[in-house]
Amino acid sequence: MNKQQNLEIKRHSFAHILASAVLEMFPEAKFGVGPNIENGFYYDFDLPRTLIPEDLPILEKKMIKIINKNFSFEKRVVSHNKAIELFKKAKQDYKVEILNSEAKDGEISLYRTGEFVDLCRGPHIDSTGELDARAFKLTKIAGAYWRGDEKNKMLQRIYGVAFENKNELAAYLKQQEEAEKRDHRKLGKELDLFCFSDLVGPGLPLFTPRGTIIKEELQKHIEKICRNYGFQKVITPHLTKIDLYEISGHAKKFNKELFHVSSEAGHDFVMKPVQCPHQTQIYASRPRSYRDLPIRYMESEKQYRAEKTGEVGGLNRVYAITVEDGHTFCKPDQVKDEIIGLVNIIKDFYTALGLWENHWVSLSVRDYAHPEKYIGEPEDWDLCEKMLQVVSDELGLNAKRCEGEAALYGPKLDFMFKDAMGKEVQIPTVQVDFATPKKFNLLYIDKDGTEKHPVMVHRAVLGSYERFMALLIERYAGAFPLWLSPVQIKILPVSSEKHLEYAQKINSLLLENDIRSEIDDSNESIGKKIRFAEKQKTPYMLVVGDKESESNSVAVRERGSRDIKTEEVGKFLEKIKREIEEKK
Amino acid sequence: MNKQQNLEIKRHSFAHILASAVLEMFPEAKFGVGPNIENGFYYDFDLPRTLIPEDLPILEKKMIKIINKNFSFEKRVVSHNKAIELFKKAKQDYKVEILNSEAKDGEISLYRTGEFVDLCRGPHIDSTGELDARAFKLTKIAGAYWRGDEKNKMLQRIYGVAFENKNELAAYLKQQEEAEKRDHRKLGKELDLFCFSDLVGPGLPLFTPRGTIIKEELQKHIEKICRNYGFQKVITPHLTKIDLYEISGHAKKFNKELFHVSSEAGHDFVMKPVQCPHQTQIYASRPRSYRDLPIRYMESEKQYRAEKTGEVGGLNRVYAITVEDGHTFCKPDQVKDEIIGLVNIIKDFYTALGLWENHWVSLSVRDYAHPEKYIGEPEDWDLCEKMLQVVSDELGLNAKRCEGEAALYGPKLDFMFKDAMGKEVQIPTVQVDFATPKKFNLLYIDKDGTEKHPVMVHRAVLGSYERFMALLIERYAGAFPLWLSPVQIKILPVSSEKHLEYAQKINSLLLENDIRSEIDDSNESIGKKIRFAEKQKTPYMLVVGDKESESNSVAVRERGSRDIKTEEVGKFLEKIKREIEEKK
Repeated sequence: MNKQQNLEIKRHSFAHILASAVLEMFPEAKFGVGPNIENGFYYDFDLPRTLIPEDLPILEKKMIKIINKNFSFEKRVVSHNKAIELFKKAKQDYKVEILNSEAKDGEISLYRTGEFVDLCRGPHIDSTGELDARAFKLTKIAGAYWRGDEKNKMLQRIYGVAFENKNELAAYLKQQEEAEKRDHRKLGKELDLFCFSDLVGPGLPLFTPRGTIIKEELQKHIEKICRNYGFQKVITPHLTKIDLYEISGHAKKFNKELFHVSSEAGHDFVMKPVQCPHQTQIYASRPRSYRDLPIRYMESEKQYRAEKTGEVGGLNRVYAITVEDGHTFCKPDQVKDEIIGLVNIIKDFYTALGLWENHWVSLSVRDYAHPEKYIGEPEDWDLCEKMLQVVSDELGLNAKRCEGEAALYGPKLDFMFKDAMGKEVQIPTVQVDFATPKKFNLLYIDKDGTEKHPVMVHRAVLGSYERFMALLIERYAGAFPLWLSPVQIKILPVSSEKHLEYAQKINSLLLENDIRSEIDDSNESIGKKIRFAEKQKTPYMLVVGDKESESNSVAVRERGSRDIKTEEVGKFLEKIKREIEEKK
Repeated sequence: MNKQQNLEIKRHSFAHILASAVLEMFPEAKFGVGPNIENGFYYDFDLPRTLIPEDLPILEKKMIKIINKNFSFEKRVVSHNKAIELFKKAKQDYKVEILNSEAKDGEISLYRTGEFVDLCRGPHIDSTGELDARAFKLTKIAGAYWRGDEKNKMLQRIYGVAFENKNELAAYLKQQEEAEKRDHRKLGKELDLFCFSDLVGPGLPLFTPRGTIIKEELQKHIEKICRNYGFQKVITPHLTKIDLYEISGHAKKFNKELFHVSSEAGHDFVMKPVQCPHQTQIYASRPRSYRDLPIRYMESEKQYRAEKTGEVGGLNRVYAITVEDGHTFCKPDQVKDEIIGLVNIIKDFYTALGLWENHWVSLSVRDYAHPEKYIGEPEDWDLCEKMLQVVSDELGLNAKRCEGEAALYGPKLDFMFKDAMGKEVQIPTVQVDFATPKKFNLLYIDKDGTEKHPVMVHRAVLGSYERFMALLIERYAGAFPLWLSPVQIKILPVSSEKHLEYAQKINSLLLENDIRSEIDDSNESIGKKIRFAEKQKTPYMLVVGDKESESNSVAVRERGSRDIKTEEVGKFLEKIKREIEEKK
């Protein structure tokens, strides 16, 4: 038995011990189910009163006592009928209901720990003493419908985490604390980056002025990079007749995830789940010659997916994502160079953000056993997969071949990074597509005068602004680099009366230079002003008092540092402009 | 009888003469109806064959003959039954149908012109000779369902225009020709600014790279102006629960114009028809103090209206408009200054475009007879209307009071301009709104510590990008000023081989300076290259040959001018940069 399985058994045993503790506290308790889960366990109870957070340490103490008594986990096998009889007698309605929903002829196993007997398939540890009483913690009380069905009664669920020993528990709790501190939902609110409204609904974030600045800075940055590479910006509508997706294959692929748009007058549209088919229609709007290729379109419009109501939250799962999406239409002999160019854009972009070091690349190919999941010709697929392999080799990407991970229309290179908590995220991608241009009968006149289909190369660099912002908020724990900071400089007059004029002079100078600067003209002490600016994670604070106004200088305090350095205004301005320009 | 009524009678008489000519050409013709319309007339016919454009001059000649014969319009009054009998005999089924759908007891008037007898209330001119045979023209053949009902038979409609004399006709035709040349739908296609796709559907324009440049230049321009005035950009979702509009009143106001969004999983949203309620939710997302006000939000997101299918077309009537919309939340004592500031933004913006000269301002107030059409308190309305009157007086706007033109929530100043063809367009607006902040319970803590409602000031400057682009395309007839031109400079090497390198050097220099430059490296003659660039309405052409490459200069040809002026490259660059910066 491996270590992981062993730990899972222990976690499940912790659940029994929790139930045993609850029974001590509430002899009338009725028990639902109590499985092990990732990092711990839970148990559902029907109790005579609502639990309060203060109940958790009481229960923890009782659990420690039970563990220390070293009760054995006694297994007993009885007939189905006998089991029902036992649980009926104990008034354990939920257990009886479980038994009644099962086949009546099998044998049933029961586990006893101290006073508590549970209907359970096991396995368990031999006795409670095998557990480390310092290696668990009850973390949360939540409501949970019996059997997950909202028509049933709402039970009370207690969550716990449990590990092999107290060090592992401590490491986990510390990581959790760090993750909570970095949680983009929490920071988004604290730093006033985005908000939600009950009237608008969950899954539909509203970007405040500060959040909008970050989105627009990212957009300017990526669009500039792509423009230099030859991408031209386009704008396509968010609605379409479904005809477009019946040809592209997305109607079938997205199916239930499509939002349908209607009106009393009988309009019938769908909202776009992807940008590609719309962009083909711009290509198709006039005749193209081989001399025009490659044609590269990019746009930053919204895509819509009817995500499950219960799954939306924060910026990672929303109904509409604003995707920085691009497509190249080129000749077959241009595809390889195009892929290389796009991979280099991705490499440069993520290197600058310090994310390239921990990346790996997937060469996502077909599920060879299920060709019906894809559109296009097998020979085109073979060619594309080979081409991506060659590029991967030439660029030393060391791509791992992942079967069944291809897109609807072709294979792709997917790039994986690690987020702030070490979790893997997949954002950029380069995809080769011979199928879509054929489906839409896109054409160009080749040098020899014949009509040919261009190849389409799909690419995402930062993906959706919503997810990318969530990633960056967590990565920087809200302390954005200068170029992305909503407020770049906070000017703190020592006295909001005496030094306000000088502060305004500096502020105007910075604003004229397109630097996002603000004055804290409150009546707080300079100490409080600094603490507030630190809390807002402002990259630079400029303290200005008598000395500074007399010498045309500013006392510069960098975020996170206690040092203050006096600098001449013009010199500071030049330094800041350079730092913004370099996107450090 | 005034001149206009007189002309309308003549136009209606032209319709009879057209019918008479058709009867000559098709003795089996059955007649629908033939009214006068703006600028002319039409008549609907059921004919044995489909008309072709070549039929129109033939019919015109026949009409001229009829006019010259000076037939009198003979009126005859008969009983209803007699009329039915006559038209049944003549096999005029449509006329019989009209008679049958009317009350049976009245007297019926008939008009005869030559061979043609029509069921008609009149009045008419006395005889065809009163018409100027050189003052009409048949313009168009179209299909039209009998009685406008698509379940009925499709008849053939002939349109004509008619005036008092040939000079008026000529002036009208010239104006039409000019309007057609400037038509943004035609120019949008010719200059490759936007396109439509049958698969996406009408009413849903796709912006090509060139059109996107114009949209983005306009956006940068207006956002910079508004940012300098204190507006902060926000982004709000395009979807919402309808709850938002039930509070704002827009659910009732837009009702059938709302697009509803649903999914198989049961999602239920509407698409936003306006931005204001969304922006209130950002204001409401945190506590506000009097020190924070005014707070000014702007955004450039899409709004959706379920326009009638038959009415969408070009950029003026689309399902989604991208509105540059802004809202100020301020204290009551800040409203007046805010309105003045916003009017000044509007004045500056339209003065720079040369549109201010022909403007007039509407002070759009309530329909006092129907207070139920509006939300909010009467005393707030009185105050707002008074305030707008004061501002109009102070700024010398000379606003005309227009009853019943107010917004749902308050009175407004609307600014009217003349488009390229002299037609009035209403775009910018400043609206005062005490009602919405109360509906959403928006609050700020005043100096005295009490909670108060802010006042909301709505404003539009350029309105929607779609309509504004249509206006500008037609105003400039596609010859955009330098700063708005998709391609600002076209470099034309005299020989695409010999001078290409020098052309590329100039091009790189221009691109590095963010100037939108292109090389025409085709193998055409320099004359053809110039003609093509002129057709594309490129503001500057730089001809480069031996002389230019040797002297580091360019031969500059301005759009619409035949002069060529040689300039040193650096000097030309400085001039161009200044011209773009100044938005001349």
